[in-house]
Amino acid sequence: MIVVMSVNASAREISDVIARIREMGYDVHLSEGKERTIIGVIGRGQPLQQDLLALLPGVQQVMRVTHPYKIASREYHPDDTLIPLNGIQVGSEDLAIIAGPCSVEDRVQIIETAHAVREAGATALRGGAFKPRTSPYAFQGLGEEGLQYLAEAREETGLPIVTEIMDPQLVPMVCQYADVLQIGARNMQNYTLLHAVGESQHPVLLKRGMSSTVEELLMAAEYILSHGNTRVMLCERGIRTFETATRNTFDINAIPVLKEISHLPVIADPSHATGKWEYVEKVSMAAIAAGADGLIIEVHLDPENAQSDGRQSLKPERFAALVEKAKQLAPVVGRRVAAPVTA
Amino acid sequence: MIVVMSVNASAREISDVIARIREMGYDVHLSEGKERTIIGVIGRGQPLQQDLLALLPGVQQVMRVTHPYKIASREYHPDDTLIPLNGIQVGSEDLAIIAGPCSVEDRVQIIETAHAVREAGATALRGGAFKPRTSPYAFQGLGEEGLQYLAEAREETGLPIVTEIMDPQLVPMVCQYADVLQIGARNMQNYTLLHAVGESQHPVLLKRGMSSTVEELLMAAEYILSHGNTRVMLCERGIRTFETATRNTFDINAIPVLKEISHLPVIADPSHATGKWEYVEKVSMAAIAAGADGLIIEVHLDPENAQSDGRQSLKPERFAALVEKAKQLAPVVGRRVAAPVTA
Amino acid sequence: MIVVMSVNASAREISDVIARIREMGYDVHLSEGKERTIIGVIGRGQPLQQDLLALLPGVQQVMRVTHPYKIASREYHPDDTLIPLNGIQVGSEDLAIIAGPCSVEDRVQIIETAHAVREAGATALRGGAFKPRTSPYAFQGLGEEGLQYLAEAREETGLPIVTEIMDPQLVPMVCQYADVLQIGARNMQNYTLLHAVGESQHPVLLKRGMSSTVEELLMAAEYILSHGNTRVMLCERGIRTFETATRNTFDINAIPVLKEISHLPVIADPSHATGKWEYVEKVSMAAIAAGADGLIIEVHLDPENAQSDGRQSLKPERFAALVEKAKQLAPVVGRRVAAPVTA
Amino acid sequence: MIVVMSVNASAREISDVIARIREMGYDVHLSEGKERTIIGVIGRGQPLQQDLLALLPGVQQVMRVTHPYKIASREYHPDDTLIPLNGIQVGSEDLAIIAGPCSVEDRVQIIETAHAVREAGATALRGGAFKPRTSPYAFQGLGEEGLQYLAEAREETGLPIVTEIMDPQLVPMVCQYADVLQIGARNMQNYTLLHAVGESQHPVLLKRGMSSTVEELLMAAEYILSHGNTRVMLCERGIRTFETATRNTFDINAIPVLKEISHLPVIADPSHATGKWEYVEKVSMAAIAAGADGLIIEVHLDPENAQSDGRQSLKPERFAALVEKAKQLAPVVGRRVAAPVTA
Repeated sequence: MIVVMSVNASAREISDVIARIREMGYDVHLSEGKERTIIGVIGRGQPLQQDLLALLPGVQQVMRVTHPYKIASREYHPDDTLIPLNGIQVGSEDLAIIAGPCSVEDRVQIIETAHAVREAGATALRGGAFKPRTSPYAFQGLGEEGLQYLAEAREETGLPIVTEIMDPQLVPMVCQYADVLQIGARNMQNYTLLHAVGESQHPVLLKRGMSSTVEELLMAAEYILSHGNTRVMLCERGIRTFETATRNTFDINAIPVLKEISHLPVIADPSHATGKWEYVEKVSMAAIAAGADGLIIEVHLDPENAQSDGRQSLKPERFAALVEKAKQLAPVVGRRVAAPVTA
Repeated sequence: MIVVMSVNASAREISDVIARIREMGYDVHLSEGKERTIIGVIGRGQPLQQDLLALLPGVQQVMRVTHPYKIASREYHPDDTLIPLNGIQVGSEDLAIIAGPCSVEDRVQIIETAHAVREAGATALRGGAFKPRTSPYAFQGLGEEGLQYLAEAREETGLPIVTEIMDPQLVPMVCQYADVLQIGARNMQNYTLLHAVGESQHPVLLKRGMSSTVEELLMAAEYILSHGNTRVMLCERGIRTFETATRNTFDINAIPVLKEISHLPVIADPSHATGKWEYVEKVSMAAIAAGADGLIIEVHLDPENAQSDGRQSLKPERFAALVEKAKQLAPVVGRRVAAPVTA
Repeated sequence: MIVVMSVNASAREISDVIARIREMGYDVHLSEGKERTIIGVIGRGQPLQQDLLALLPGVQQVMRVTHPYKIASREYHPDDTLIPLNGIQVGSEDLAIIAGPCSVEDRVQIIETAHAVREAGATALRGGAFKPRTSPYAFQGLGEEGLQYLAEAREETGLPIVTEIMDPQLVPMVCQYADVLQIGARNMQNYTLLHAVGESQHPVLLKRGMSSTVEELLMAAEYILSHGNTRVMLCERGIRTFETATRNTFDINAIPVLKEISHLPVIADPSHATGKWEYVEKVSMAAIAAGADGLIIEVHLDPENAQSDGRQSLKPERFAALVEKAKQLAPVVGRRVAAPVTA
Repeated sequence: MIVVMSVNASAREISDVIARIREMGYDVHLSEGKERTIIGVIGRGQPLQQDLLALLPGVQQVMRVTHPYKIASREYHPDDTLIPLNGIQVGSEDLAIIAGPCSVEDRVQIIETAHAVREAGATALRGGAFKPRTSPYAFQGLGEEGLQYLAEAREETGLPIVTEIMDPQLVPMVCQYADVLQIGARNMQNYTLLHAVGESQHPVLLKRGMSSTVEELLMAAEYILSHGNTRVMLCERGIRTFETATRNTFDINAIPVLKEISHLPVIADPSHATGKWEYVEKVSMAAIAAGADGLIIEVHLDPENAQSDGRQSLKPERFAALVEKAKQLAPVVGRRVAAPVTA
């Protein structure tokens, strides 16, 4: 941290700031220019509260030199984190393709969808049993019954299950069914949930909050990682901006940024990022071209009758076409779409 | 809802849309123009999924005519909701002034602060025992011990307690100590928590999410209200924008908007909205001038040594000056700052 | 400027950065910590390109210590700038109240409106003759004819004229009619126009761009000020955010921020900031309470038939009520609404 | 347009709205539901002012059915617009690759760069002679001298010139040198400039404003098109959001959206969209994968000494690598990078 003193700061103010920094267990390095003094904070004590130093008399500005996340950073862990999923390593050359309906609606639907997406080349099956809905009057998911259907679908197809968890109390129960726990965008800073999921030691797909910065996403990951649960996949799913032509604005820049500053795999969610099925294939290709480690795509047998997110769901045949396109594109950027292990 | 058919929609497409709407339990009203057909959806069945109709062939656009919240709307409840708090009715002529530290740090701090803010004219005491912090390495609050100190402070000063709740499981415990449950901005769409708080029947201060629209804030309130818990205060605390001169952008427009479309009281939080104590008084006055029903202000005995949010906390004497100013301003806009009931 | 070297920077990289800074005519101050070296840039050469230093090997981050505007800053000019307008000094205790229609529509309209707003207590008359319209098919203003009507309205009422200028070539012509040149939000970074207006030495009302930061607004002002034209009023008129309940989000925080860091007067535009006449009075009061030096309000004799912005225009009687309210509020915040000088 | 009357609207209010619509030269279609009346506006008179109808008593909401741009829409012009540039047709299978420095700095620089980018496969040369700079103290470009150097570079390499125009008065002069006139993001709604450029009949590269919607971009294009100048290329260059990890947020969704609703070619600018050269190649590939018709890339011989935008400029060898990658990617999405015609 660097403390920039104002041009008019008195010697007394400068020595008070130094004393305060030392109290906090840090050392200082003084840089006395002609115009102003700049104080470097050296060492590693307890987390420094930048804001408090800013309150001291004579201080003009306090600037952070390091980023606030540790375990999530590439400096801490230079190699890519690899997370096994259905025979591939997410984060490696192999692209993960997670597909399925927004909501599990009934037993037949989810099993048929699982077969369809496996045929098309999916690595894992997504499906929501607990649904975060803006309206209390909208369909809220089938709950544990939905999880049971997902488990049946896995049994039939071999596809691992990715499903959202909203209630920290239900983590043990959901872990019995799910292979990957999904944290939704609205819960990215639900710290009670992050702690519970961190303790579970279950793989996690952590979605970026719709107005969260890349740094805040990594801080949320840090909550999970700090419990020793290292199997965290980050998910870019679009952010909220002033543009209304699409449901969200897909922050494609975030993919190379995250890959540079973190070692965690990055999955793209073009379904939520666009909100319209017409754009899903093109934005999926863009995500792969930008370096994403995988995709999560909403697929529905009959979008016009979906309980949720029908507007952005692909029919199985369109999903299959998307996977074909991904197979052609992947080698251009050093990736591949592996043939699924599951028989 | 209104379904606008495209200029080229065929008769068959139009009749299919009509059939679909009827299947959903609604009636239709047809408007056949020279250029295109427009279909009005009439009646009240189960919540209509606007998006699904948009998927039908020949449909250009589907437009919502009504808003999605009900109990929170002024049409449903034309009179202002009044919520008793320490002898005043929040939502009436009397302004509620909630003040206290960001975090409860120790017993002496919270009791002294309680005395100071009561002296200055506060209606209630705020203080966090469970803190949602961006970093897992930052101070997370004293937990139940903090609640016990808050209860002591109430005993000594008579000030009711407003405190944040993050874990749905802890609602019964927190209700034993708190007079008002605060839902923080990060948890505004934590539906598990909203349900638990709704069931508690305890008064709630619901903060707007940092990138939530006014409509989404009312939908979050609707979750609580739909459990029969009608004592919900809305809180505008600034939204996230591109501007970085202040911590957030205080959406002053939201105050008259919320007062017009909802009957629930609106509290302003200038501390979080600005992030700098220097601006808190001016923005507080602006909030009252715009029609807010009260303020929630961070006050700390020694901001330079605060465990959190010191940068935006007022010292007690500055808070007292703010209340004096509020007393002068209030009558101009038909309000008053009542003398506290507490002895 | 401060250059933070990365933890692994070599001695060679450090000395190269130092050499580069000296080449640019600056001196350096070295701070060698245990972990990393930090280089302070000292002195005042030509404007430093922060980005270029960031490209040098071994550099982790380059941080700016000073702000990029000079003449607009309060350090450069500690006292408030006062700008005479119809007998008051804008920036002093007296609030400036500028009112009138969005567009000049015809001779009778603007003269009648001028009388109405003068009666109600306006300081100056606004009215657009050149209109920046999103659509090329919308009414584009009366041009010079409109300016002539404005001049007639001034002759009859004594109210000075505030009118928008869009074309740099027309500055001399518009100056013949206008007392204050308005730069609209869309043109805040139209540098050709800023230069022309700067050279005119005419008073300027500079509107903040709809997605411009406070710093960028001051940089735009700097363009005008750097031509020796010091009579610049800044105008906060709402910024673009994700919220759609109002036309823009009024950044009330910007008022105390601008008053702190700059000496230029700040005018608030609640008409554009809300987009709906129902909210204009409340947000006007908020602006005054937050410390604005004046208001600019759209007033139309017959909003339902206005050529533009009818939705946000007040009828004269509502405007008169607003001014009455402002008269009551002003003394609470150390201001007053002066009786107009004009006979 | 559809006018939704409120539930309590009286018969008189309804008939008044109808009368008003007829006055404006439109016909109406009435849809009387059980709850409310909905009025469809039929026909094509002068542009309807939606806002004014919203002011009439009894009106709840006015909704637009059609988009406000005409000539820019795909309905008006179903086939892709093709714009010849150096032997290819922009908007066809052939990708346009425009490259060069942010600013023309001197004669040797621009000629050397032109050779380098032509070698690498560029279709056209970019370079700014008039620079819109946030600070009045920053390098403002070489002016006409810069244009002369660009013309020399074209003579030597055959590459057509793309250069920014800021001053409407200079359009005739700039047209003598430039092959394509660039309108920068800050000037997207500088209507005086749009008119002048429209009248020039010169090809235009129109950059999206940093907080402009896709619809506003098309409205700005409409200004140019309405002068009969049909050779307009749209350019997505990133929008302003809350994220600060990159200079802007590249709105990749905008590419398929624009290609669907408009017939104009879409060029992507990954240099401004990211602000850091490290991300330019990946985001360029994403843009092509999403369906862009071309790229505009900042290339500098010596970024560390660039007068502007060095941070985001590629060195020629990296640009050459990017073009190689584009050649591999293009066929996967039905495109190609043509060998330049120029000898």
